[in-house]
Amino acid sequence: MAIVMSVNAGSSSFKFQVFEMPEEKVLAQGNVERIGLENSIFGMKFDGNKIEEVCDIPDHAVAVQKIMDALVDNHIVNQLEDIQAIGHRMVHGGEYFDHSVLESEDAINKFIELTDLAPLHNPAGLLGYRSFKKALPNASHTFVFDTAFHQTMPKENYLYAIPYEYYEKDKVRRYGMHGTSHLYLTQRYAQITGKKLEDVNIVTCHLGNGGSITAVKNGKSFKTSMGFTPLAGIMMGTRCGDIDPAILVFLQKKYGYDYEEIDNLLNKKSGLLGVSGVSSDSRDVEAAAAQGNERAILAQKMFASRVIETVSGYIGLMGGADAIIFAGGIGENAWSYRKAICDGLSVFGVDVPDELNIGVRAKEAKLSSDNSKMEVWLLPTNEELVMARDAYKDLMENA
Amino acid sequence: MAIVMSVNAGSSSFKFQVFEMPEEKVLAQGNVERIGLENSIFGMKFDGNKIEEVCDIPDHAVAVQKIMDALVDNHIVNQLEDIQAIGHRMVHGGEYFDHSVLESEDAINKFIELTDLAPLHNPAGLLGYRSFKKALPNASHTFVFDTAFHQTMPKENYLYAIPYEYYEKDKVRRYGMHGTSHLYLTQRYAQITGKKLEDVNIVTCHLGNGGSITAVKNGKSFKTSMGFTPLAGIMMGTRCGDIDPAILVFLQKKYGYDYEEIDNLLNKKSGLLGVSGVSSDSRDVEAAAAQGNERAILAQKMFASRVIETVSGYIGLMGGADAIIFAGGIGENAWSYRKAICDGLSVFGVDVPDELNIGVRAKEAKLSSDNSKMEVWLLPTNEELVMARDAYKDLMENA
Repeated sequence: MAIVMSVNAGSSSFKFQVFEMPEEKVLAQGNVERIGLENSIFGMKFDGNKIEEVCDIPDHAVAVQKIMDALVDNHIVNQLEDIQAIGHRMVHGGEYFDHSVLESEDAINKFIELTDLAPLHNPAGLLGYRSFKKALPNASHTFVFDTAFHQTMPKENYLYAIPYEYYEKDKVRRYGMHGTSHLYLTQRYAQITGKKLEDVNIVTCHLGNGGSITAVKNGKSFKTSMGFTPLAGIMMGTRCGDIDPAILVFLQKKYGYDYEEIDNLLNKKSGLLGVSGVSSDSRDVEAAAAQGNERAILAQKMFASRVIETVSGYIGLMGGADAIIFAGGIGENAWSYRKAICDGLSVFGVDVPDELNIGVRAKEAKLSSDNSKMEVWLLPTNEELVMARDAYKDLMENA
Repeated sequence: MAIVMSVNAGSSSFKFQVFEMPEEKVLAQGNVERIGLENSIFGMKFDGNKIEEVCDIPDHAVAVQKIMDALVDNHIVNQLEDIQAIGHRMVHGGEYFDHSVLESEDAINKFIELTDLAPLHNPAGLLGYRSFKKALPNASHTFVFDTAFHQTMPKENYLYAIPYEYYEKDKVRRYGMHGTSHLYLTQRYAQITGKKLEDVNIVTCHLGNGGSITAVKNGKSFKTSMGFTPLAGIMMGTRCGDIDPAILVFLQKKYGYDYEEIDNLLNKKSGLLGVSGVSSDSRDVEAAAAQGNERAILAQKMFASRVIETVSGYIGLMGGADAIIFAGGIGENAWSYRKAICDGLSVFGVDVPDELNIGVRAKEAKLSSDNSKMEVWLLPTNEELVMARDAYKDLMENA
C-alpha cells in the first residue's frame, strides 16, 4: 500500500488528489486558486468533510506547504514522508514522450525544450513539479503528459499539409490534448467489456469547456481533433475550433489585428460564447436556447453538427468502431447535447433512446439500446487516477 | 437554336466555349493566356481543328477581339451577332446570389460590393464581362457564381464559431466554391439514375489542383469543404486546407511573417507541393511515390486520409448517401487516388473493384460493383455547360 498524489499545476493554481494505491481509493482532493493574487483560496474535501479558506498564498512553494499542512493536520497522512509518489500533469510532451516517465535531468531538459509548444502550460507544470520536489525530495515523481497517448497517430494523420520544413525545424504537427482522459476512457471501456486493449475500436468524445474527440483504433490514438494547439477541432466554450485559416488573414488585413489579438479572439471570445453572445458555459447557452434565444439555439446546433461530422469522419477513417464514449463536463452531464449528437449519427445505426439518456449524469451508463449497431457509453473520465496509476507504477518498478 | 458562349476570365486569361443550344453541342473551345504579358497565347479547338498562336494581347478588350475574329474567320459563327447569350463566370456571389442572374445595374453593384470576399477573382470576372459586353452589347449576358449552389447550406453548417459580429459586419462565413461543378454533378447523377433532384443524396468530390467536397442532401448543397475562401477543406495542390488556425499565429510570432506572407505560404507553397517537396501536380507526386520517395508517399496518404475523413463526415452529417461522385482532374484521371479513397470507405460498404476502376479516365463510369452498398461514379464535370445552360435559359425567358 502506498499514498500517491496527482498534481495539476496552473500558473496561479493547483489541483490535487491523494490516493491509496493500488486500491485506487481517493483519500482527499482539493485545490488552491489565485496563487500570487489577493484572497487566495484553499479548498479540500476528505472523508465527508470540506475545508475552504481564504488566505494569503504568495507563490507555489507556499501553496505546497499549505497542502502538506492540511494533509497532516487532518490526519490524511501521518507525516509528509508517507506520500511516496506524485504524478505531475506536465501537459506538452512533444514527440519526446509517448508515455509517462520518472523524473530525470534528461526528461526535464527535454520538457523545457518544448516550452515553445505550450508557452503557458509547460512552465506552470515545471513550477508545480519543482515546488513539490522541494517539499518531498525523496518521493518518486512522475511526469504525465496530455499529449503522450496521441503519439501513436500515424504520420499521415498528424502531419499538416504545410511546407515540410516547419515540421522538421519547428515540429509543427498535430499533437492533440486530453490524452490522459482519452487513455482512461479507452482502458475503462476495455475493462467494462472485457476486451483486450488491442481490440478496442472506439471514438472517445471528451466534451467540456475545452473538448476533443479521438479515434481509438486497436487501443491506440489514431487521430484526434485537437491539433498543434488546443484551439483546433470542434467548437468549444470560447474556442473556434477548425476554421478556414484565411479568416485570420482577412481579419488581420481588415482590422489591423496583430497575431496576439487574433489569437486572443479565437481562443477566448469564440466558440459557444462568440456565437451565442450569451456565455461560454453550455448550461447557460442551453437555458437561453430554451427561452427561444436564436443565437443560443444556433450555437447548440453548430456544436452538435461539428461533433457529428468529426465522429462520423473518424468512424470512416478507422474503418468502423464498436462504441462512442461521452465524457467531460458536457458529455457527462448534458443529456440534451448528447441527444442531439446521437440522433445525428443514425447512419451508423446508433440508437440512444430517451429513457436511457435523459437525466443521466456523472455516472457510468450504457446509453444505447440493445438494438443499437454501435454502443454508446457515458464514462466519467478520471485523469487524476491515470496520473496516480502511472506514478504508482514508477514507484513500484523503482522500489 | 441559339449560339451561346461560356466565358471564364482570369486577371490575365480567358477560357471560353461556344455551344449550340439547346442541343448542348460544343462548336469551339479555346483560351487566351498571358494577357498583358509578353508572348500572349491564343488557342482554339473546333471540329477537329486546332489553332495555337503566340501574339501580342495587351488587354482583355484585345483578347475579346481576338476570340471574336477567330470565331468568324473559322466560320464557327457567321457574324458576331449570332452569339446570342454569354454565361460569365463571376466567382463570388456572396449571400446575394443563390442562382445565376441576368446582367443588371443592381447585380453589378452587388457584385462589386463583394470584392473584399474575392479580391483577385471578382475584379477579373467583372473585367471579362465588361470586355464582352462592349463587343456584344446586344447579347444576353448572364452572371454565374461559384458560390451560388452552396447558398442552400443551413446556417449551422455555414457559420463559423467566431464572434457573431464578424458575420454581421463582414459576412465572414462558409461560402464554398466549385458550386457550378457540384451542381452539374448533382444534375447529371439525377439524369443518369432517373431520380428526381430532390431525391438525390450524394457526396460530390471535385478533386483537382484545387479541390472541394460537397454533401448534397435532397439535391441541395448541405455542407461543402471550401470555406470563407478556397484555402479551406481538403489538402490541395498547393493549399493546406484545414489546419489548426493557431499555426498561423505560431509562424507569425516565430518568423515575423506578415499576413500576406502567411497567406502566400498557405495558398501557394503548401498542399501536395509543401509535403512532397516534389510538385503540386498529383501525377508528379504519384511518379515520385512509385520510385519510393517517402515524402511523396506521405503526401498521397495524407491526401487520401483527408478525403476519406471529409466524405465520411458528410455521409454522417447527412444521415446517409446513395452515391459518391468523383470529378476534377484527379477525380477523373487518377485511378490510384480513387482507389486509396474508396478502399478507405469500407465502413459504408463501398466496393470499387480494380477491374471497374483501374485505368478508367475522363468518361462517365460506374466504378462500384453491384454488391456495393453505396454507388461510386466517375462523372467528368462540365461547368461550362452549366454556364451555357443558365445563359440560354435567361435568353429564352427574356426573349
